[in-house]
This record gives sequence, structure tokens and C-alpha cells, in this order.
Amino acid sequence: MIDTSKIKDFDKRIEKIKESIAYVQDFPIKGILFRDITTLLEDKDSLKETIDLLVDAYKDKNIDYVVAADARGFLFGTALAYFLGCGVVLVRKPGKLPRKTISQSYDLEYGKNVLEISVDSIKKGDNVLLIDDLLATGGTAGAMIQLVRKLEANIVSFAFVIELFDLGGSKYLKDNFDVDTFSLVKFPGH
Amino acid sequence: MIDTSKIKDFDKRIEKIKESIAYVQDFPIKGILFRDITTLLEDKDSLKETIDLLVDAYKDKNIDYVVAADARGFLFGTALAYFLGCGVVLVRKPGKLPRKTISQSYDLEYGKNVLEISVDSIKKGDNVLLIDDLLATGGTAGAMIQLVRKLEANIVSFAFVIELFDLGGSKYLKDNFDVDTFSLVKFPGH
Repeated sequence: MIDTSKIKDFDKRIEKIKESIAYVQDFPIKGILFRDITTLLEDKDSLKETIDLLVDAYKDKNIDYVVAADARGFLFGTALAYFLGCGVVLVRKPGKLPRKTISQSYDLEYGKNVLEISVDSIKKGDNVLLIDDLLATGGTAGAMIQLVRKLEANIVSFAFVIELFDLGGSKYLKDNFDVDTFSLVKFPGH
Repeated sequence: MIDTSKIKDFDKRIEKIKESIAYVQDFPIKGILFRDITTLLEDKDSLKETIDLLVDAYKDKNIDYVVAADARGFLFGTALAYFLGCGVVLVRKPGKLPRKTISQSYDLEYGKNVLEISVDSIKKGDNVLLIDDLLATGGTAGAMIQLVRKLEANIVSFAFVIELFDLGGSKYLKDNFDVDTFSLVKFPGH
């Protein structure tokens, strides 16, 4: 678990990041209030604070690899790995990774998705931090956890920039995979 | 143009980055020798050096925004923006950006692709650095340049981590768009 009381001015800094995130009504489909992280990324102060706060949260956790989700997780994974002094490993959609991969499918509301990771990327016992931009119901995150566990790495935490807190994602990941999540900014999911 | 003689130990540092990039024969199709940037990303020293060298190249160029290409450009765009003290703007495939966008199509060997940018992301006269992981023939890069020019921003440079130097991408971008490219690592394209 991340103790945010040890991070200087955490609540105040989070409030400014939160204000930088736009919302778009009815995207990608009618009835969805979409939280738009691109306005955070475009704002230099919010971008810096987001990365600084994630680094503060994990700098003493002896992370060996950051595992980042295609595609918006990539935006935070590399910067985080830089400051944590480790490498970044990609989880991608099928056919995108050129070396030997293992795959994991997961259910969507209608149909299935598949994610892949390179088999020779992380090793047994490595301390791994997973990252994606947004936690909703936790489907993608659960598949990422399963991929990392197939390679027998040790999951330290799963970090998100945004969590839609009433969609049950963090409880799903805790109950089903015993993984602790840490989300910087929390919004209702509708 | 970037004067690499001003960057400390440039050639030696590039050589180590180059060694970290795997190659995969016959990916994604037979006859292609694919340069695999994921092994660079997984190597903490090469990841750090890649970002440090890109920052060194652009730190005095008064960049207002880094514009990054979906998806592997995202891996470098945010880290670069952090150190250059600016925001990062995403160029994405259609339907991925929630606010109002403009789009640009470009030709592939068979068919067409389309890229989009948010219309309210960069403004007239902004100094923009574009980034992607790899320069081949320059099709994607050309479309990104056209998007940024439609918003009347000023393109300072287009940076790549890898250039397949004999595929003509840098000449194509110079001749057709008068944009200077800067590539850290160069390989033949086959």
C-alpha cells in the first residue's frame, strides 16, 4: 500500500492535476462521461506533477521493471522507469511484439480482447510495477496481472493516473488477484 | 540541425544504445529485418541514455510542445516533454481522441491510413518537436507534419530513436516538407 501522507502536499497537488483533466460527454458512445487525459498531458505543470507523484510513491520499492499497457500506459511507463532506474516492458495487442510472446484473453461487454507480453522480458522473482492511465472495471488490468504472473514475477503494485472509483476495479483486482492498486486521481464513472 | 559534437561522448553512447536493439528476421512479414526497440526499453541504461541524449539535443530549442505518434512515440514523448518543461500532444488513429480533431490521410503500400490531432492542442506559432520511435519511408511522419502545419505551429525538428537510413525517409521529409530530422541510431533497412 502507498502511504500518501509521506508525499509532500499530496492532496493539494492532486487537486491541480484533477482540474487539468477535461471531460467529454457521450464519448466514445452515448451516456459515457469520458475523462480526457490528453488535457493533463498538454499541461506542462500537470504532466510534471503526475510523474513526480508516481515516482515519489514508488521510489523506495526496489522496482526491477515497469510494465506498461498499450497505448496510453506507454505515456507514463517510460518516464516512471527512467526515474525509478529500471527498464520498461510493453504489454501490447496481438501481433505487435516481434519476439516470442505469451498471451492472455479477457472478456469485454461484447466479445473478447487479447494482450501479449514478450516471454524473455521479465524473469521469475523480478519486482514489477504495472501502469495504465485509467482504471474502470479492471478487465485490462486483470489480464496484465495474469501475463506477469505467468512469467512468475512479483507484482509490487498496479498504478493508475485516473480511477473511476464506483466501477469496482480496485476491489476486483484485490479480490481476484490480491493486487494493491494506487490511483492518483479519482472520479465517479458516469 | 542538431550539432552532436556538443553532446558529451555522443558516438560512444550511441554505440551502446545500438547494441541494445534486437533484430527479428521476417517480422511482421517475410523478408523484413525488424529492429526491435523493446530490448532498448527493457535495458535501464539504454533507456536512460536514449532519453538523456534526446533531451541534450533539444534542451536549448525553446520547445512549447512535443507531439508524439501513437503508439511507440508515446514511449519517448512524455519523458522528453518532462525534461524540456513542456506538454505532450498526441497524434492518434481515428476515433481515439475525444475532443474535436482534424485528420490527415496518407498512402501505404496497399491502401491508406489516417491520423488525427485535437484542434485545440497546439496553437499558431508554437514551437513543436515531433517524435516517433522509427523513421522508415516517412509516410507517418509526413502526415504528422501536415497535421501540425494545419494548426499553424512552427516545426523545430522531427526526432526518431531509430532511422532505417537507406529507405529515404529523411530526404523525403526534407524535400517535401522542409523539415529537419534527427535520428539517434541508424541501421540499414533490410
